[in-house]
Amino acid sequence: MIRVLVWNEFYHEQTKESVKAIYPDGIHSTIADFLKCDDIEVRTATLEDENCGITKEILDETDVLIWWGHARHHLVPDEVAALVRDAVHSGMGAIFLHSGHHSKPFKALMGTPCSLTWRESGDSELVWVTNPAHPITQGIDRFIHLPNEETYGEPVSSPNPDEVLFIGGYSGGEVFRSGCLFRRGNGQIFYFQPGHETFPTFHIPEVQTVIRNAVRYLVPRYRAEITCPHVRTWNDPEGYMIKK
Amino acid sequence: MIRVLVWNEFYHEQTKESVKAIYPDGIHSTIADFLKCDDIEVRTATLEDENCGITKEILDETDVLIWWGHARHHLVPDEVAALVRDAVHSGMGAIFLHSGHHSKPFKALMGTPCSLTWRESGDSELVWVTNPAHPITQGIDRFIHLPNEETYGEPVSSPNPDEVLFIGGYSGGEVFRSGCLFRRGNGQIFYFQPGHETFPTFHIPEVQTVIRNAVRYLVPRYRAEITCPHVRTWNDPEGYMIKK
Amino acid sequence: MIRVLVWNEFYHEQTKESVKAIYPDGIHSTIADFLKCDDIEVRTATLEDENCGITKEILDETDVLIWWGHARHHLVPDEVAALVRDAVHSGMGAIFLHSGHHSKPFKALMGTPCSLTWRESGDSELVWVTNPAHPITQGIDRFIHLPNEETYGEPVSSPNPDEVLFIGGYSGGEVFRSGCLFRRGNGQIFYFQPGHETFPTFHIPEVQTVIRNAVRYLVPRYRAEITCPHVRTWNDPEGYMIKK
Amino acid sequence: MIRVLVWNEFYHEQTKESVKAIYPDGIHSTIADFLKCDDIEVRTATLEDENCGITKEILDETDVLIWWGHARHHLVPDEVAALVRDAVHSGMGAIFLHSGHHSKPFKALMGTPCSLTWRESGDSELVWVTNPAHPITQGIDRFIHLPNEETYGEPVSSPNPDEVLFIGGYSGGEVFRSGCLFRRGNGQIFYFQPGHETFPTFHIPEVQTVIRNAVRYLVPRYRAEITCPHVRTWNDPEGYMIKK
Repeated sequence: MIRVLVWNEFYHEQTKESVKAIYPDGIHSTIADFLKCDDIEVRTATLEDENCGITKEILDETDVLIWWGHARHHLVPDEVAALVRDAVHSGMGAIFLHSGHHSKPFKALMGTPCSLTWRESGDSELVWVTNPAHPITQGIDRFIHLPNEETYGEPVSSPNPDEVLFIGGYSGGEVFRSGCLFRRGNGQIFYFQPGHETFPTFHIPEVQTVIRNAVRYLVPRYRAEITCPHVRTWNDPEGYMIKK
Repeated sequence: MIRVLVWNEFYHEQTKESVKAIYPDGIHSTIADFLKCDDIEVRTATLEDENCGITKEILDETDVLIWWGHARHHLVPDEVAALVRDAVHSGMGAIFLHSGHHSKPFKALMGTPCSLTWRESGDSELVWVTNPAHPITQGIDRFIHLPNEETYGEPVSSPNPDEVLFIGGYSGGEVFRSGCLFRRGNGQIFYFQPGHETFPTFHIPEVQTVIRNAVRYLVPRYRAEITCPHVRTWNDPEGYMIKK
Repeated sequence: MIRVLVWNEFYHEQTKESVKAIYPDGIHSTIADFLKCDDIEVRTATLEDENCGITKEILDETDVLIWWGHARHHLVPDEVAALVRDAVHSGMGAIFLHSGHHSKPFKALMGTPCSLTWRESGDSELVWVTNPAHPITQGIDRFIHLPNEETYGEPVSSPNPDEVLFIGGYSGGEVFRSGCLFRRGNGQIFYFQPGHETFPTFHIPEVQTVIRNAVRYLVPRYRAEITCPHVRTWNDPEGYMIKK
Repeated sequence: MIRVLVWNEFYHEQTKESVKAIYPDGIHSTIADFLKCDDIEVRTATLEDENCGITKEILDETDVLIWWGHARHHLVPDEVAALVRDAVHSGMGAIFLHSGHHSKPFKALMGTPCSLTWRESGDSELVWVTNPAHPITQGIDRFIHLPNEETYGEPVSSPNPDEVLFIGGYSGGEVFRSGCLFRRGNGQIFYFQPGHETFPTFHIPEVQTVIRNAVRYLVPRYRAEITCPHVRTWNDPEGYMIKK
């Protein structure tokens, strides 16, 4: 059973009628609903929960964390962002959606500002598959059509990704590396650009397929805290680890 | 003095009036003309020259080779393609322009078919800079606007590039990694997508700037044929190389 | 059921008593024997078989090809090497072992000479895991100890790998990127350096574990010949593919 | 004129006689001395200076920062580490030496713990060139021999580098990616592993050559703070930037 935790700042859905109309129970609930299936169990947490609903214990029991945040990044305590960062280092998978590029844990994991150009003008977007053979792109044809999406443009100040799986093109002309993989320690991160709150992006079946594929792809095969072991030579009769 | 060799199949310019009108002396002459300057000297060669105008000696005296081909790839002898491939391995820089993605030397260097989707419908293209700090993108603003260009679309079946410097977006919706670096042995390759023969792309100053930047960037710092030396241990008193 | 084809030039085992003693039925038989299990079925082929035992039909029915060659690379027909190359492009997984770095299909897929420094002096080798979280390194501790192995040294003139999973260090001082992943088209390639014919490397359990892990990792999720489709715009009422 | 700032925690050289004997005026002075030349000017700063000798103004006037730290990482204020991180994002080059892998600015730029295995047993090390054609490896033969060095072993929990230029092998058996390039925003980082304080590593000519090459390679071609501009479409008659 894959254990997913969907985190959402859950702000716009409670303060803006137009957003509430699209995601009446919050983006996290919509994502949880389409993910739940025989091999995936889902919990949710939001900014309103104590400690953002995130503790080391909860992350230890999470295979893949999904993060949506936008206007309340600054209200996530540094300690919570550090817990998420460290859990990825230990092997937890993480999917950062849309404006999660500016969330504290994502920036901490990238080591960069992760900035970009942007515009909210309701551009349509085609999200093109750049590697049709990758597990995360299975079930997607040549592209995903998003009738409306916030425009994100290059250059993005993230590090070079380990692999680019999707590139988006907008009707206004911009392009953006919309689906990128990054390894950090024992964990892997998938950044996926679609998902502005004012559009029903997470109701689009192909977007759901990509997120479901990514969940399955990011399940850790190995989980261990990163240490900096003081070692003897490999063949030392006393063993290689030096216990202080 | 940087020594550039511009190679062109020089076919459309002699058989199609509309192309001849844009490049009366051939695309190679246009490129040679805008490149020539105090620190760059340029020679040209075409499919019509004996042995395509390419010998090992000529390539040994070339710092950067620029290649344009489209409809006559199959007429380039395998031996000539192999000479180009080997010269890159030894350290020569190479720029493959536009439909050069399907040329014999480029495919041999990539190890893949380098195919893509395409359409000649006169789309306009914005070629966006993805790394504004790279030497090859200096002097370019956020993007290059090409009023008309042949459309190239993802997925392209080339290997993952070492770095992506430009991504193009077309008015018809497609996106394409338009400027990519690949290291092969001691040499580096820059693939640059603009340059369909029916449009005056090589007369656009920003396109010229990118090609000039790339020439300067690709000048070899080290040139040596790739060998597979049989060695003794590094500190062997007889020296490490085993002469057979 | 994962369908594996193990290819071996099967030369040293028939001509050298010391090698025959280690691999009496050939390296291919040893590999086939340790791979066969509930979810993996294995066929073998050698240089002695008609057309090297390789046809398009056979490769179409192969999920992962394993290749061992050393002294008879030149006897593999170009057509056979091209079949292997094309099958990888279409999605087949491929594992090239040890001196397979100089085989025709590997060099064709890399686009480089894939040369290195080498010495047969019976160095011992430690093959260190560089990414303990990757599926291919599961079940391996910090390193694999090979009591004797042919020495391969950097620099290797292969392209930058998509990911490095193992780095070997030899008692004579050399280092080598011993386990590397490369994507080529729809297929993935794992190069794994251990396996000189004069040592019982393929009898070592950890080496077997890595090869078994790699087989499972390289199973294609998507298989399609690479084409270069002429397309209409994505939303053209006649459909995007242009049938000629 | 290339403007270099060498930063050193300057601790061991003042507290340990054996280290003082090797670097009487501190590692920073030794590095400054061998770097100074016609086209390179060098300033130094240490932990003892006010604010570590680092302000935004000083970094704005620095092309390449060199950082050595080991036992006093925790005494570098977070604000100073943030200044360094931000300056790299804006384009400043940075070289992190040896135990700088655990410094605050390096970890902030990598997004990972950057841990490794280690041992102080006076192993000798061969630092092998993996790309003989890169500007940073020019003037180095196949390897650099370090008679004694602290042992650093894989796996290192840094992200996959953009390129690996050196791999070290130790007499005790370990291997380590000793020379790695990482791009972060507009700046580039070179991590170089040699340089333990108890050995005269920085007096070795080849080590000096690599650092000098790296300084020249990392000089910024473009320097601009990373912003997240709110934009109109590229061809908007009012201009693309939206001034709020």
